[in-house]
Amino acid sequence: MAIETTLTPAPLGTNPFDDDHLREECGVFGIYGSPDATAHTALGLHALQHRGQEAAGITAFDGEEFHTKRVLGQVADNFTSQGVIDSLPGHTAIGHVRYSTTGETVLRNCQPLFAEFASGGFAVAHNGNLTNAMHLRRSLVSRGSIFQSTSDTEVIIHLIATSHFRTLLDRVVDALRQVEGAYSLVSLTREGLIGVRDPLGVRPLVLGKLDGAYILCSETCALDIIGADYVRDVEPGEVIVITENGIESQNPFPEQSPRPCVFEHVYFARPDSFLDGQSVYEVRKRIGAELAKENPVEADVVVPVPDSGTPAAIGYAQASGLPFELGIIRNHYVGRTFIEPSDQIRHFGVKLKHNANRWHLDGRRVILVDDSIVRGTTSMKIVTMMREAGAREVHMRIASPPTAHSCFYGVDTPERAKLLAAKMDVESMCQHIGADSLAFLSINGLYRAAGQGDGRKTAKPAFCDACFTGDYPTFLTDLQEQEEKQSQLSLIANTGG
Amino acid sequence: MAIETTLTPAPLGTNPFDDDHLREECGVFGIYGSPDATAHTALGLHALQHRGQEAAGITAFDGEEFHTKRVLGQVADNFTSQGVIDSLPGHTAIGHVRYSTTGETVLRNCQPLFAEFASGGFAVAHNGNLTNAMHLRRSLVSRGSIFQSTSDTEVIIHLIATSHFRTLLDRVVDALRQVEGAYSLVSLTREGLIGVRDPLGVRPLVLGKLDGAYILCSETCALDIIGADYVRDVEPGEVIVITENGIESQNPFPEQSPRPCVFEHVYFARPDSFLDGQSVYEVRKRIGAELAKENPVEADVVVPVPDSGTPAAIGYAQASGLPFELGIIRNHYVGRTFIEPSDQIRHFGVKLKHNANRWHLDGRRVILVDDSIVRGTTSMKIVTMMREAGAREVHMRIASPPTAHSCFYGVDTPERAKLLAAKMDVESMCQHIGADSLAFLSINGLYRAAGQGDGRKTAKPAFCDACFTGDYPTFLTDLQEQEEKQSQLSLIANTGG
Amino acid sequence: MAIETTLTPAPLGTNPFDDDHLREECGVFGIYGSPDATAHTALGLHALQHRGQEAAGITAFDGEEFHTKRVLGQVADNFTSQGVIDSLPGHTAIGHVRYSTTGETVLRNCQPLFAEFASGGFAVAHNGNLTNAMHLRRSLVSRGSIFQSTSDTEVIIHLIATSHFRTLLDRVVDALRQVEGAYSLVSLTREGLIGVRDPLGVRPLVLGKLDGAYILCSETCALDIIGADYVRDVEPGEVIVITENGIESQNPFPEQSPRPCVFEHVYFARPDSFLDGQSVYEVRKRIGAELAKENPVEADVVVPVPDSGTPAAIGYAQASGLPFELGIIRNHYVGRTFIEPSDQIRHFGVKLKHNANRWHLDGRRVILVDDSIVRGTTSMKIVTMMREAGAREVHMRIASPPTAHSCFYGVDTPERAKLLAAKMDVESMCQHIGADSLAFLSINGLYRAAGQGDGRKTAKPAFCDACFTGDYPTFLTDLQEQEEKQSQLSLIANTGG
Amino acid sequence: MAIETTLTPAPLGTNPFDDDHLREECGVFGIYGSPDATAHTALGLHALQHRGQEAAGITAFDGEEFHTKRVLGQVADNFTSQGVIDSLPGHTAIGHVRYSTTGETVLRNCQPLFAEFASGGFAVAHNGNLTNAMHLRRSLVSRGSIFQSTSDTEVIIHLIATSHFRTLLDRVVDALRQVEGAYSLVSLTREGLIGVRDPLGVRPLVLGKLDGAYILCSETCALDIIGADYVRDVEPGEVIVITENGIESQNPFPEQSPRPCVFEHVYFARPDSFLDGQSVYEVRKRIGAELAKENPVEADVVVPVPDSGTPAAIGYAQASGLPFELGIIRNHYVGRTFIEPSDQIRHFGVKLKHNANRWHLDGRRVILVDDSIVRGTTSMKIVTMMREAGAREVHMRIASPPTAHSCFYGVDTPERAKLLAAKMDVESMCQHIGADSLAFLSINGLYRAAGQGDGRKTAKPAFCDACFTGDYPTFLTDLQEQEEKQSQLSLIANTGG
Repeated sequence: MAIETTLTPAPLGTNPFDDDHLREECGVFGIYGSPDATAHTALGLHALQHRGQEAAGITAFDGEEFHTKRVLGQVADNFTSQGVIDSLPGHTAIGHVRYSTTGETVLRNCQPLFAEFASGGFAVAHNGNLTNAMHLRRSLVSRGSIFQSTSDTEVIIHLIATSHFRTLLDRVVDALRQVEGAYSLVSLTREGLIGVRDPLGVRPLVLGKLDGAYILCSETCALDIIGADYVRDVEPGEVIVITENGIESQNPFPEQSPRPCVFEHVYFARPDSFLDGQSVYEVRKRIGAELAKENPVEADVVVPVPDSGTPAAIGYAQASGLPFELGIIRNHYVGRTFIEPSDQIRHFGVKLKHNANRWHLDGRRVILVDDSIVRGTTSMKIVTMMREAGAREVHMRIASPPTAHSCFYGVDTPERAKLLAAKMDVESMCQHIGADSLAFLSINGLYRAAGQGDGRKTAKPAFCDACFTGDYPTFLTDLQEQEEKQSQLSLIANTGG
Repeated sequence: MAIETTLTPAPLGTNPFDDDHLREECGVFGIYGSPDATAHTALGLHALQHRGQEAAGITAFDGEEFHTKRVLGQVADNFTSQGVIDSLPGHTAIGHVRYSTTGETVLRNCQPLFAEFASGGFAVAHNGNLTNAMHLRRSLVSRGSIFQSTSDTEVIIHLIATSHFRTLLDRVVDALRQVEGAYSLVSLTREGLIGVRDPLGVRPLVLGKLDGAYILCSETCALDIIGADYVRDVEPGEVIVITENGIESQNPFPEQSPRPCVFEHVYFARPDSFLDGQSVYEVRKRIGAELAKENPVEADVVVPVPDSGTPAAIGYAQASGLPFELGIIRNHYVGRTFIEPSDQIRHFGVKLKHNANRWHLDGRRVILVDDSIVRGTTSMKIVTMMREAGAREVHMRIASPPTAHSCFYGVDTPERAKLLAAKMDVESMCQHIGADSLAFLSINGLYRAAGQGDGRKTAKPAFCDACFTGDYPTFLTDLQEQEEKQSQLSLIANTGG
Repeated sequence: MAIETTLTPAPLGTNPFDDDHLREECGVFGIYGSPDATAHTALGLHALQHRGQEAAGITAFDGEEFHTKRVLGQVADNFTSQGVIDSLPGHTAIGHVRYSTTGETVLRNCQPLFAEFASGGFAVAHNGNLTNAMHLRRSLVSRGSIFQSTSDTEVIIHLIATSHFRTLLDRVVDALRQVEGAYSLVSLTREGLIGVRDPLGVRPLVLGKLDGAYILCSETCALDIIGADYVRDVEPGEVIVITENGIESQNPFPEQSPRPCVFEHVYFARPDSFLDGQSVYEVRKRIGAELAKENPVEADVVVPVPDSGTPAAIGYAQASGLPFELGIIRNHYVGRTFIEPSDQIRHFGVKLKHNANRWHLDGRRVILVDDSIVRGTTSMKIVTMMREAGAREVHMRIASPPTAHSCFYGVDTPERAKLLAAKMDVESMCQHIGADSLAFLSINGLYRAAGQGDGRKTAKPAFCDACFTGDYPTFLTDLQEQEEKQSQLSLIANTGG
Repeated sequence: MAIETTLTPAPLGTNPFDDDHLREECGVFGIYGSPDATAHTALGLHALQHRGQEAAGITAFDGEEFHTKRVLGQVADNFTSQGVIDSLPGHTAIGHVRYSTTGETVLRNCQPLFAEFASGGFAVAHNGNLTNAMHLRRSLVSRGSIFQSTSDTEVIIHLIATSHFRTLLDRVVDALRQVEGAYSLVSLTREGLIGVRDPLGVRPLVLGKLDGAYILCSETCALDIIGADYVRDVEPGEVIVITENGIESQNPFPEQSPRPCVFEHVYFARPDSFLDGQSVYEVRKRIGAELAKENPVEADVVVPVPDSGTPAAIGYAQASGLPFELGIIRNHYVGRTFIEPSDQIRHFGVKLKHNANRWHLDGRRVILVDDSIVRGTTSMKIVTMMREAGAREVHMRIASPPTAHSCFYGVDTPERAKLLAAKMDVESMCQHIGADSLAFLSINGLYRAAGQGDGRKTAKPAFCDACFTGDYPTFLTDLQEQEEKQSQLSLIANTGG
């Protein structure tokens, strides 16, 4: 393996969302036919910043050349000056925001990726994750392909470069037919914009319009910021090509029943976005109402864990008739991790972002509403914070089922052993976090809130819910090959011993 | 005048609060007797960051030397590394956060300021503003004092340096007896910590305790973050000296009736802080309830302008029985100003931070609750945003009286001519911002919500409310001298012509 | 074409050598078997910094992984901290310094380049230039290779990756048999170090030894700095492989008569280096003596143009019996280009680096000795500077023949139209620069000084001297194809019109 | 004491001169009446960079305001952009370059210093050092003056501010009459430029003219770079005032016999400068000739220690008839200190800058010429380098007498105990550095070379030569008070014990 020392300082950890969450790994944006293509892309990426806070990039095409700027850092800190916008000229552009685990955040893994094909330049931005990338990569390297990154997106590029089909579009389809996993892609060629959503539609992708320009992006909130109209969601398996001839669409993949990610509704998407026509905010309020129905408790006040628990807490309060109060106040200023002073100061970490609002807690029975529990570290601290502020009882209500399985489709999950729900039952979890009671929403309650009135149909679930159920909708080739290799190794070790 | 080109890049405008607000200009923190003095000060300043986002500084004393670090930028980005903490050793420290208008944000105006007196080093951090600083400065310069900054805090330092009293404490008191205006000071000497709150108590200052250490700081939220206990508010006119002999207190100023700033309750203070024993959050909820009582309107939903309008909106919703909904979603990622693309994109500025949540707005009658109106620019954009999202009616309710006068006591206000309420009556303002109705809280309603059941007593008001009433509780010497000079100039011009 | 906005500020132009010179484009260094491999490489590159001032890079191999750091900037500013050295662990390392024309100085063109082959990692650093790189590149891209840089070195890497030979060494030889031009390569594999010098030996490469470690580098001065012993020059066409089995050598190319670059003697190499066993300083002194013999003139003083003309001037002075004086004093502090103030200040540019030393010039007849004339801009300014300091006569003597042809072998030359000697005869050049007389060394004189007592043998010249004679020792495929394409275009244009 | 953590990274140690030298601490430049005042000042400071490499500053006055920029770093890296030049507008400017010992290089000690007096702004740049600064400072602080720096220049400013005289000029003279030591000052007021040279004229200051503008600067080389004419040296004790009324001059101090620093001739001044009408280069050549006469030795070659020993070596070679050769080659690329690899590499430090040129050393008897010996560390390494390159004999000749005393007049000298000549006689020094012979120039030889044909007159020496003779021409009040205090302390300690 090659390690290039990164040139840019590590990005500030200015993520206002809680560390103890699953994290969406990417957001994408593309626009065709706008005189402000790069400015619009920067704004759209800014609206998608919650989908990836650590790196950002834009590639623009001015009819002659492709111009790329990629940075470790946030959009608003790097793509706002006139100089930067002017350095990325053109009427067509794509962009990408990315979250990355520390060791890998070198710039060459940032996107859009660019390649010079015999047919001309090709840039691509990818949201999702392939489950057979390592397998394909080994094969490509043995035939002479040279990889510059560890990104699975580059696998797609080399598959296109070495495809034997003639037209670029055919080569793209040829490449995507070989990959497994989840992907929502936007790519930029000399001719125009190509958008693709994988056959299961795991990750979102929507189409919008602004005057004469077309937009492809991860969420509708990126349309709102530039004043564009929402046209429709890109369909699972759909390949959209936008050129000077307008929009063409095809679906070249074998038909499959769609499985969009249900966690987008629970936490990833912004509350002001719409997914497949449903308001995310409203789904979250309905989740809160389902939660109140499934798991009622006598209490004085409903308090959201800010900000991700707020819509569900409002739904819970309205359904239960209890008052909704801001019992936890967020500090809007966040930054690098502070030095830990002496041991006398407990729970200091969580206080950097949150403080108890004593007035409504002292002597009260509190229902805390959060969207999910991953490791449980934050929940424990917040329960303690409530008690120190005088809460008489603390009842934790979680707006999703227990998260017990890793995601392989473009979401950063801790290894399974670190997921609290993979290690404990609900009662143990309750003791662990120190609450008086703990309840999760049922999987059927979640499906109902998300618009599936009949709940989850086991034979044909309407969503990808693998993180809750372990029911993965694709092959997991790389994982399987790795496990086989390790079991062979241990076999050898065993027979060897 | 001398202009030193600043060395540090302009601070990111990462202020998540709205630009169209009055701004508190400073926060202060001091601690005596803690092995983690600097780490605690950094944490305390982080909790006070909302009182000044553009510069921060800490001075620590290790028994031998004073160590200072001051930066343009935020606490969490500059005072968190082990290296920085180690470079500021000692058991005693003071710190300062500061907001500054652009032209003046040179580092030498940042605090704590430090001077080497004949008696030894002296550092000071100041929240407030003097109204006779220019007058005193001219006199000092004519006697040979050399100023390094344009800060009025340096006037205090030179008054101390040239005082003819013998002990440092007497010199401090001698200096403060000569100044007019508002100040909450913490200062650091070889012997310990000195805290002073001006005789009117305009700006807040509280005393806390953590194990053996004493803390003086602007708000109680800075005690919470380090786990310290609140002891009491420092009294108006009180001088507190903390040394190895413990705490000593005196009040060396002529007695005056206190006039703490009422706008701290409306907007400046954090909702989780307590001012003079009252929960800021609860006062704001009571403000919302008063507002609902004074200015009811038929509507479907109560929507806060986030985040400053949220507690009042909750109070309004609870008092009126209308549902509280997050009709405006905040983007947590903010940064430098984006390039303005072509004119086709309207209201793009406000969309960087806010987006309408259509679901609860479309076809509804909306009550928007905000804390205040300064220039009115944001209000206009948000009303438009509501209408574009489909709102049938938009009723704006403001959680304070019209802001019609400048503040000279340490709050950044636009010149009077730019205050919307100084130019228009309420009906014109309503038309200007495009709302269907607009109503402000009355001054008596505000006093009632802030705990003065009888409302405002004209002879002896319980607060400084000059920004609403124009009733300034101190002389304004510098302003008066400037106005006299200008009227003389125009007299000369007139007679000359 | 793709343009990546570079992340690093443009390197300071701290080149103390004159801008009006040909520039060597690269220096290389490799070491096998030293516990201080990276520290030694950094030192060696520092000694070779004159061969490329704008970028530097090191790749080290620690037995498991390859570690690379590449920067825009100088070695001494970037590879000296313990942190950097520690981030590049291993007993084997290669490094590269590079000069680049402005537009192309993006980091991805910097070296060493690295590729992950099926057989493992491969890093390479290259001094020289291929004359059929574009031709080969087009063919590779059409077969699916994706290029990351515009560097011709990457062509070599893709040729290796797609070679059908089995062993890595065979693939390297297969690749190099396809390229034309000049190259001295050091490359790093999991097994060890490979060094190659092209069949003509245009660019230098020497072998050294330090305790158990072997070194391959561009010049002997890089051996001196680490205290290593010079073993021998690598032979033209030689492939050296250094592994734990020691050194193996082969020469797999068709035999050709060597043509090392004669300009290394004139200017590129450091005066303390030895090339093919000859002291560069001594050759330059002999050049000065030849020059005095060929072009004597009555004068009072011999003055070098510092620092490149100094050894030849000493040689001239000793041969002519005239006194050698420092008539031009160099300012050692150089940096970015200064702002040009008003027109009243003439010749200000050259004065940033040089000042006349009036004492020995006023009223004297001065012989100025410089190594070469490229554009003539500096010569003109220096002659004027001499006259302004009072010189009675100024006689310019140049330590090489007129530079009238571009170099395609890794030397930065202006396009031919900008070479003064391509546009004018010697007499016109003399008038142009304003000297009283001007003389160049003859090509035979240069050969004699460089150890070829019989001068240049036209049939089989001992050096590459194409910049003086236009006699290029290899095919120039890319240039030819480009010229053919342009002549076809003009043919079309003509017939079309 | 107060320690402000510096904001700027430590300046690169890009000093090409040898570390083992005394160092001039400052250079000054001022210009009145030029439309390019700041650009000229930047160029002038660039030419004076050898007098102070670590900090630089310029203050310009545009008729309304004073503009200052001060940096840690070199002129050419910080004062060359159009933006910087434009930020310092005006027809009058002063500038300063400064060398500083590490701990104190905080920006606030950099110059020009600026103060706002009652009469208006005042900026000053100072070359020299006061010997009673601490004494005066204590008195000023006790009367209420607040110091911002540890610079003795600020003492002068406070003396001016608190002077009871009426006009600014009278206050300046009043202040300077109270100080002891060496100073060449340029200062900028609203009216114009004031230049002062102390009554002994220890540090140089010259007057120049360029069209209508007047220049005051440390050396004539700063006039050359902007094409200005040399008018005359400012006289010891002279106060020059340049305003719109032209030049006025006075000498308000008691008359004293001048004592300019002789070490300026030996090493500090640039060889292309003239001091009191004498060419520095020529004086150094005469020094070499005197040295050859006083201390001849049989040898084959004369080799300068570059670059400071070069003119003396040329003089030695011409006087002795021996050949002058560049036996030591300098690397022009210098930067931060490299990591020391393992012990096997000896003398690696000196090799970063120097390499032996073996050709003329191997088997030869070498005369090495250097300007001075301070600690002797470099001499030892260079002698070893000569021997390792094969030198048969190494004879060291030093172009000044033994440096045995500290300088208190603005030159950075090690404490006396570290001066080799303070600890050893010449024979021991010779053994210490490992030479075959060592000889210094006599003090009379130095005086003769510097134009005093009769040598040094003990009663009335023509130069300050305290570093050689210990004969200090002023009181040393601070040193004396410090020594008295310490002797009292040890007295107390003794009696106490």
